Amino acid sequence: MKNDILTNETHPELRVFRLEMAHPGDVSRLAALLDAGTINASEVAAVIGKTEGNGGVNDFTRGYFTQSLFHLLARHSGTPSQQLQDSIPCILSGGTEGVLSPHYLVFVRTSAAAEAPAGPALALGKALSPVVPAQDIGRWAHVRSVADAVRAAMDDALIEHPGEVAFVQVKCPCVTSARAESAVAAGHSVLTADANRSMAYARAAGAFGVALALGQIEDDAQQEARLLADFSRFCSQASISSGVEVSVNEVVVLGHSRHWHGPLRMACEPMQDALDLSAVMTALGRLGLKPAPQLPPAESARVAGVLVKCEPDRRGHIRGVRHTMLDDIDINAQRHVRGALGGVVASVIGHGQIFVSGGAEHQGPDGGGLIAVIASVGNL
Amino acid sequence: MKNDILTNETHPELRVFRLEMAHPGDVSRLAALLDAGTINASEVAAVIGKTEGNGGVNDFTRGYFTQSLFHLLARHSGTPSQQLQDSIPCILSGGTEGVLSPHYLVFVRTSAAAEAPAGPALALGKALSPVVPAQDIGRWAHVRSVADAVRAAMDDALIEHPGEVAFVQVKCPCVTSARAESAVAAGHSVLTADANRSMAYARAAGAFGVALALGQIEDDAQQEARLLADFSRFCSQASISSGVEVSVNEVVVLGHSRHWHGPLRMACEPMQDALDLSAVMTALGRLGLKPAPQLPPAESARVAGVLVKCEPDRRGHIRGVRHTMLDDIDINAQRHVRGALGGVVASVIGHGQIFVSGGAEHQGPDGGGLIAVIASVGNL
Amino acid sequence: MKNDILTNETHPELRVFRLEMAHPGDVSRLAALLDAGTINASEVAAVIGKTEGNGGVNDFTRGYFTQSLFHLLARHSGTPSQQLQDSIPCILSGGTEGVLSPHYLVFVRTSAAAEAPAGPALALGKALSPVVPAQDIGRWAHVRSVADAVRAAMDDALIEHPGEVAFVQVKCPCVTSARAESAVAAGHSVLTADANRSMAYARAAGAFGVALALGQIEDDAQQEARLLADFSRFCSQASISSGVEVSVNEVVVLGHSRHWHGPLRMACEPMQDALDLSAVMTALGRLGLKPAPQLPPAESARVAGVLVKCEPDRRGHIRGVRHTMLDDIDINAQRHVRGALGGVVASVIGHGQIFVSGGAEHQGPDGGGLIAVIASVGNL
Amino acid sequence: MKNDILTNETHPELRVFRLEMAHPGDVSRLAALLDAGTINASEVAAVIGKTEGNGGVNDFTRGYFTQSLFHLLARHSGTPSQQLQDSIPCILSGGTEGVLSPHYLVFVRTSAAAEAPAGPALALGKALSPVVPAQDIGRWAHVRSVADAVRAAMDDALIEHPGEVAFVQVKCPCVTSARAESAVAAGHSVLTADANRSMAYARAAGAFGVALALGQIEDDAQQEARLLADFSRFCSQASISSGVEVSVNEVVVLGHSRHWHGPLRMACEPMQDALDLSAVMTALGRLGLKPAPQLPPAESARVAGVLVKCEPDRRGHIRGVRHTMLDDIDINAQRHVRGALGGVVASVIGHGQIFVSGGAEHQGPDGGGLIAVIASVGNL
Repeated sequence: MKNDILTNETHPELRVFRLEMAHPGDVSRLAALLDAGTINASEVAAVIGKTEGNGGVNDFTRGYFTQSLFHLLARHSGTPSQQLQDSIPCILSGGTEGVLSPHYLVFVRTSAAAEAPAGPALALGKALSPVVPAQDIGRWAHVRSVADAVRAAMDDALIEHPGEVAFVQVKCPCVTSARAESAVAAGHSVLTADANRSMAYARAAGAFGVALALGQIEDDAQQEARLLADFSRFCSQASISSGVEVSVNEVVVLGHSRHWHGPLRMACEPMQDALDLSAVMTALGRLGLKPAPQLPPAESARVAGVLVKCEPDRRGHIRGVRHTMLDDIDINAQRHVRGALGGVVASVIGHGQIFVSGGAEHQGPDGGGLIAVIASVGNL
Repeated sequence: MKNDILTNETHPELRVFRLEMAHPGDVSRLAALLDAGTINASEVAAVIGKTEGNGGVNDFTRGYFTQSLFHLLARHSGTPSQQLQDSIPCILSGGTEGVLSPHYLVFVRTSAAAEAPAGPALALGKALSPVVPAQDIGRWAHVRSVADAVRAAMDDALIEHPGEVAFVQVKCPCVTSARAESAVAAGHSVLTADANRSMAYARAAGAFGVALALGQIEDDAQQEARLLADFSRFCSQASISSGVEVSVNEVVVLGHSRHWHGPLRMACEPMQDALDLSAVMTALGRLGLKPAPQLPPAESARVAGVLVKCEPDRRGHIRGVRHTMLDDIDINAQRHVRGALGGVVASVIGHGQIFVSGGAEHQGPDGGGLIAVIASVGNL
Repeated sequence: MKNDILTNETHPELRVFRLEMAHPGDVSRLAALLDAGTINASEVAAVIGKTEGNGGVNDFTRGYFTQSLFHLLARHSGTPSQQLQDSIPCILSGGTEGVLSPHYLVFVRTSAAAEAPAGPALALGKALSPVVPAQDIGRWAHVRSVADAVRAAMDDALIEHPGEVAFVQVKCPCVTSARAESAVAAGHSVLTADANRSMAYARAAGAFGVALALGQIEDDAQQEARLLADFSRFCSQASISSGVEVSVNEVVVLGHSRHWHGPLRMACEPMQDALDLSAVMTALGRLGLKPAPQLPPAESARVAGVLVKCEPDRRGHIRGVRHTMLDDIDINAQRHVRGALGGVVASVIGHGQIFVSGGAEHQGPDGGGLIAVIASVGNL
Repeated sequence: MKNDILTNETHPELRVFRLEMAHPGDVSRLAALLDAGTINASEVAAVIGKTEGNGGVNDFTRGYFTQSLFHLLARHSGTPSQQLQDSIPCILSGGTEGVLSPHYLVFVRTSAAAEAPAGPALALGKALSPVVPAQDIGRWAHVRSVADAVRAAMDDALIEHPGEVAFVQVKCPCVTSARAESAVAAGHSVLTADANRSMAYARAAGAFGVALALGQIEDDAQQEARLLADFSRFCSQASISSGVEVSVNEVVVLGHSRHWHGPLRMACEPMQDALDLSAVMTALGRLGLKPAPQLPPAESARVAGVLVKCEPDRRGHIRGVRHTMLDDIDINAQRHVRGALGGVVASVIGHGQIFVSGGAEHQGPDGGGLIAVIASVGNL
């Protein structure tokens, strides 16, 4: 089998460490785990986290954390920082509004002895696409590029069927003024040179790319017109970020594979709107957790990570009641909605180390989004 | 009996109208109810609302709404706008972050026929104190001034015992640079000339004033040192705002009086922290409402108003996890926490017309606050 | 002659009062002048001012001041507030960043005895267009609507030739979500339903409308494609605001007419970019003022009003050096640029009562804008 | 002689490189100069720059740039990053509001042949104090600690008399919640645990420390009460920053020493208020520059660096006119004032690569600040 994480003596096992950070350059908690040998630097497969910036184009907390992380891993692994950065997805969402707390999930692919109890268990695969040219961003070529990377990540995870995929996290590049200028100089046209607009298109392309890889839509370039237009189309397993700091699609696939071992499982539920508390309950319930309505501490301790995508309803109303997020030029709408969803979800989970990310175009129902929970099934 | 709302033929009844506004100058929903005769302008006793400003010193949406409201009531009642403003508390909190929605509660004191079923039912009393001199603000004289007004409002509500008081809303004046200058010129000293700091002290004095009126503390001026210092002291029925736009304490007391009739009841619960979802459940449960965990539409329709006070935990942590509200100079900490609590509570109630107000010093437990719910007990 | 401001015994004279406000509802300075008889309410022709909001869609300080102003004028004139609002342009720009100071210019059309020295002197005309349907906003029909109103205002000012026009201030309506919905329901299409985008198109249409009225461009609907596209086209006399609070174009024309008397004159200069200090010097110099480089107090006292339009350079650079205004999601780009230009101009004039307004699309050179100064020529 | 920058064959010469950055992690311009051998990494003596954060406690662009800078210098010098950081002051001010542009000044101490023309020429000395304990911050012990470091930096610069000092840049630590907790746990008391307040006290202590070292005040601990209280006391050569990222005082002294060679000179002028344009003119004039009122390009090219300290007037007025900076909770007051001063100064210099830093307590006149210009005297 091509994937070297399978051997005769051992089976892959995913471990997830949820670590706090004191500031965006603080990787001391991971450093301590590396120093202690709890984590082997070469087994770090992906990092997903929230930093305390504003989440916009001028949020440099993501770049700062990324630089700090890869310097640390380089020091521990002996591999140059840039080379690591080219193989380990580090997907960050800026903005810890309200009760949200800066933290990062370190996904470690380790191995269990072959006699470990059989799967299926939570599996992780990753892939980085080739560079996406500026002229492709937000177009069907971008959708295909994401889909290819998702398929590669599924292979990497030893996930055999789309139905086994629980959640796909993608970070897509976007067009910046500089990239737009280069592309135009080379005779290409870009969909938009506005970075914020381009990020939205990139997220849309990412969601369609995941849907394509999972067999939920056809590979039909005509569908390009649906991006940011037909919001009835969405993928409930796709969580997409976009940022100026990447030029390739970074993909992390999480799902359940019979080849993997360990206690972790994942549930992902679409959220109908920003107030869809029952989706939170359902996701937890599918993992055997019993919120009442808040998770008791012992249950909350079983939760390894929570990831939420959400969106300020672009029609200006939630359940018939006006919201003011879209017209506020003092606070960006995504900051507003992250703060609200942070409250909704953290009050159930019992703490604020929740990954809540805005920009949920085509990632769950229009005006809503999705919630994904990773938890240990404990002694079930 | 001194209170003219009691007669032989009728008994007072409180009605609460929760009205949306399209912008802070929009009182068209109230205008329509006045035009239709549903509300009699002379029976409007108090207004509590949320406008879509930033909630800070430079939030002029409160003044704009107030001006619009009293112009409307003046036109309908024939009483000059300023005179109405001197007798009807209009207490506004700026800031509809996240899923929160601009709205206002109009409290109307009307009357039921004498044969209406006996109380106790929800009662409202109001009072406005004399002008609080700048040099008194945030000091014990201010505490006493609030307490006197609370007692007057209890009388006005025909509430006989402190135990019958469910919730007291107070709006206190604060020191502005201009008021500080005048006071100093007149030979006085002010506690602080910083408007934001003064607002915090005024809220603290308001909370102590309510506690004093309710017999929860002694009238001991030595306790002045506890304001903004000893946060173990708090009043779980007090909700205090402060603003540059008032020079007197405006007080609204809500409670249950045997002299009143009607289906409205109120429950108020302290919140231990920003994630205290169980306090929300308890308050609803005490009114016979059954969240599961969100209120079903029929139950939600029974809720006339929800009022929440909250606070970004000043120690920088919520349940051991760091939050970033206090160090963010892009978004005011109160805006952060309102957005989070808005999510917590709206996801249970099912919509965003929730009054969530920051600055909960001594109003509920430190780092938490309180939630108050007004609901119709329907055919119970 | 149709215009009733000309009589045999008197000649029109423009007076300009620059008044401070303590907050957006404060019209006490004007009230005092009305009470003292210094200003006759029926002679107030227009108001242009800066309020201390954020200048965006959710800036309600403009509406608050407008309501306060017209209530005051209604009380003094006996004319209903709404009727006054339909005839007196009140054009406000929100945002007093940095050293800028909230203030308003009250333009009063009074009369001088016929034996007063001959003109030309500064003249003011005004006009309000019919309602601009949502589907017209930002399109050529909008351009024509503005042009018609500018011509009407020129007539009103007794200005006979476009060359006599110094400065045209226009406030245009924009499309809001609600207006867009109504238009679409009625079978129309709108250029954009995004309020911010619509405001930009409305400003562009306003600038083209002024250019059309002044004979600087042809009435050719093909030019519609140039709006927000061909920034080499601009009008150096046009200052355009747009806001949700108006549904008609409000136009104020200022220029020099031989029929008018009095000491006021006006100079308007295009600014090449945000650092075009020499344009400021030129405008002042044309009025006989001698900055060195700051105006000495006696010279500054001759300045009745300063109006500036400016723009964060959309290419991201000023004189080859990167600026960060466009990528900052914490502070709106228009707030950034107003603060900078406020510093540039106020440091020359000597105080912060400067009208600086962003959104200078087609109003002066791309990336720049214009500066207009009204000053008394004193005893020249 | 103790100072090893003096030898028989060579004389020290200061060179200043003003470099742009594309983002806070971008040190590519310096990398290119190091690669080209234009700058020798071991000769880099100090860096002063502006990054595009918000300038507040949660501005991590400073830490990001610092990390990037020292990684680069470590790679080129072979010295570990942390060791470099302990010897090379890197003083950053966040916030490039308005026309300001992110950039950094690299101060290189190189040497000229002994036969180079005699000084005095611009000299730079640096020093880092021992760690300032949290309980000392903002107190007289802090003042002394800064003064000692300034004297050490003067020695390092071969500056013999206080009168030769042109400008002193200091970065002071402040108390954070964490440091406060540790200090309190160890039995100490801190002046304030509020980070923003502590930063203000630290800047005040820094300014007094410079004044003490320059012999402008006595070493009298009674004066501690003047910090942030008696604003009539100020030092016109002191520019102080404070930040959570440092625990020692970092000091850079610039002045004119007869031991140094080269064409650079510096002039520093107090600014009376935010509109003190004549101070800008005076500083330039003292260096032989001729603004008219903007510097012609050839003159502007002689300017190596401009550093400004400023302050939103805490009395709420500038020259009798109200400003709104202090009451705006949407935009921090320091961001406001930097944007305004950026406009004032950049419009004279002709570009936005100006170091403008807020928090000018006791650094220049109350409500004003200071401007310092480094320029080449060319062939004068």
